[in-house]
Amino acid sequence: MKIIVDVMGGDNAPEETVKGAIMAADEQNAELVLVGDRNDIERIAKEQSFDLGRVEVVHTGEIVTMEDDPISVVRAKPDSSMVVGLRMLAEGKGDAFVSTGNTGALFTSATLIVRKAKGVQRAGIGAVLPCEKPVLLLDTGANVTVAEENLEQFAIMGAAYMHKMFGVESPRVGLLNNGAEECKGTELQRAAYKRLQENREINFVGNVEGSALPFDVCDVLVTDGFTGNILLKSVEGVGKMILGKLKNVFTASPVANLSYLMIKPHLRTMKKELDASEHGGAPILGIAKPVIKAHGSSDAKAFKNAIRQAVEFAGSGAMEELEKATQAFAARKKAEREAAKQAALENAQ
Amino acid sequence: MKIIVDVMGGDNAPEETVKGAIMAADEQNAELVLVGDRNDIERIAKEQSFDLGRVEVVHTGEIVTMEDDPISVVRAKPDSSMVVGLRMLAEGKGDAFVSTGNTGALFTSATLIVRKAKGVQRAGIGAVLPCEKPVLLLDTGANVTVAEENLEQFAIMGAAYMHKMFGVESPRVGLLNNGAEECKGTELQRAAYKRLQENREINFVGNVEGSALPFDVCDVLVTDGFTGNILLKSVEGVGKMILGKLKNVFTASPVANLSYLMIKPHLRTMKKELDASEHGGAPILGIAKPVIKAHGSSDAKAFKNAIRQAVEFAGSGAMEELEKATQAFAARKKAEREAAKQAALENAQ
Repeated sequence: MKIIVDVMGGDNAPEETVKGAIMAADEQNAELVLVGDRNDIERIAKEQSFDLGRVEVVHTGEIVTMEDDPISVVRAKPDSSMVVGLRMLAEGKGDAFVSTGNTGALFTSATLIVRKAKGVQRAGIGAVLPCEKPVLLLDTGANVTVAEENLEQFAIMGAAYMHKMFGVESPRVGLLNNGAEECKGTELQRAAYKRLQENREINFVGNVEGSALPFDVCDVLVTDGFTGNILLKSVEGVGKMILGKLKNVFTASPVANLSYLMIKPHLRTMKKELDASEHGGAPILGIAKPVIKAHGSSDAKAFKNAIRQAVEFAGSGAMEELEKATQAFAARKKAEREAAKQAALENAQ
Repeated sequence: MKIIVDVMGGDNAPEETVKGAIMAADEQNAELVLVGDRNDIERIAKEQSFDLGRVEVVHTGEIVTMEDDPISVVRAKPDSSMVVGLRMLAEGKGDAFVSTGNTGALFTSATLIVRKAKGVQRAGIGAVLPCEKPVLLLDTGANVTVAEENLEQFAIMGAAYMHKMFGVESPRVGLLNNGAEECKGTELQRAAYKRLQENREINFVGNVEGSALPFDVCDVLVTDGFTGNILLKSVEGVGKMILGKLKNVFTASPVANLSYLMIKPHLRTMKKELDASEHGGAPILGIAKPVIKAHGSSDAKAFKNAIRQAVEFAGSGAMEELEKATQAFAARKKAEREAAKQAALENAQ
């Protein structure tokens, strides 16, 4: 198992990313390839007393920034850690790729260089939400608009991921909507509801509202990338606000502070449960090989967890199950279209 | 000032709604009209030792339920507390209307009976989010799809509300989007961005992401009803989950429980700050007279707060400012359309 790690890009690179990779090298039973500025990597490894002989280092001279146009990156920055790393993945020089860089650039470059898995119409960016039980939200931003067939395929890809990565037998798929009833939502949701309901490969549990989401009602929640992004970031914002208020409560007085010390371990556990970075990064589902997007603000621990997730993704068989399912889906859709065409022809005669 | 109160409908009616109305009668300097089943009202008033002579009671024999089709309610249930109350409002027999009933039915019936304020294209359901500073989210579900001009008008209506109800001078308006850059979102957001930017009556602060929302970046946040509903309910769900986890922390051991007792007042303040019911209900903006939708799960306190909000809404001058602004908006749009028509004619000659 070999994981290709982009140590440039993101808010805290290369310091935290290199440190995270070093932590992962200690914890994970996998070879690592660190792609980035060799000077930075050597300096940080030295500071951390880490023997660089234990990993492979591939030097690159360019960095993809947040300002880069996602569509131009592959052509404009061929020597960036992101593009070089993705090329290595495409050429089989590693089993998975991890990056904290520009999400749009990573998604587009992965699609262009590594290409989509067989049968996939649209790849999507998943996010595992830290609810009572983990819920995979898909898509969270790659496709601002989608067709109902895309949502159907997101359901299939998401189920394969949750099955193999979290051991969920027959993952329950929900459709994010503004009400539980079948008639709810825009035309897109109503059409998608019908398809999800009819598809026997999908364990569809119906529409899911945001208020029910945290309480173990589904394992996979499908939506367009616009709505998914709004949900993901709102939940993040509100969580941050509440934890901030809680901090204020515990620092309000010496008594409050003492109270804090008394329940510190419990609060830590709670914070850990709510911390998305504990779950690692966001899997880009539908690309032919495992690609993990770590949060742009990842610290060393979060980045280490993203690498762990890449190791698990590559070793879980999720990729194989996903590709098998999307190929079967594409074949079935093709057969349906041909049958419809044939029927139309026969009707015309 | 006279407030018409629908005491039927919702999860806890008539018990909690009548109790809430009784609390409001004690606290508010306003006459109340209780619309609903007289037997229920008399029984609960007696239990609460409340002298019914202090309020007006209008008996109705029907109740709008969650199962009722919003569009048919006016015709199908003419003797329901909702329809009777709205008719009274339309006829000037009160200054505002409050109900916990079926949101869709209330919105549709208010539009049909009370009608929209002058110049309004689409009314919307607002929600005041309990953030660092209150933020009015509009729309939260009445219009699952909207045009960019609707969002522009939501901005104008929302600003009038926040100005008069919360004393915010020149309310900052944000557009809910999946990124800060102008190019973000679907076609709708890009078109709306341009309009909001160009409209000099609107203090537009640009796109707002969910992650920034709680941290005082805008006073009014406009969006389509589908996305607004997803955001509102997700935030509600996550808040509930975190407070639930916190409760588990404090009940984990006797020491934890002692710790809880030490900071109980601070925690109560925090919970109060986060409690949407403290802010009352959701104003339906764009209807010709003040209508407040109280949360379906309102208890007596929440319902009392919704009545307080109705009193404030009717007395704030928000309605007058809103109508003045929407009329000016409609006149300007009409002039623009006529100028464009004239220009096209001249070009053709």
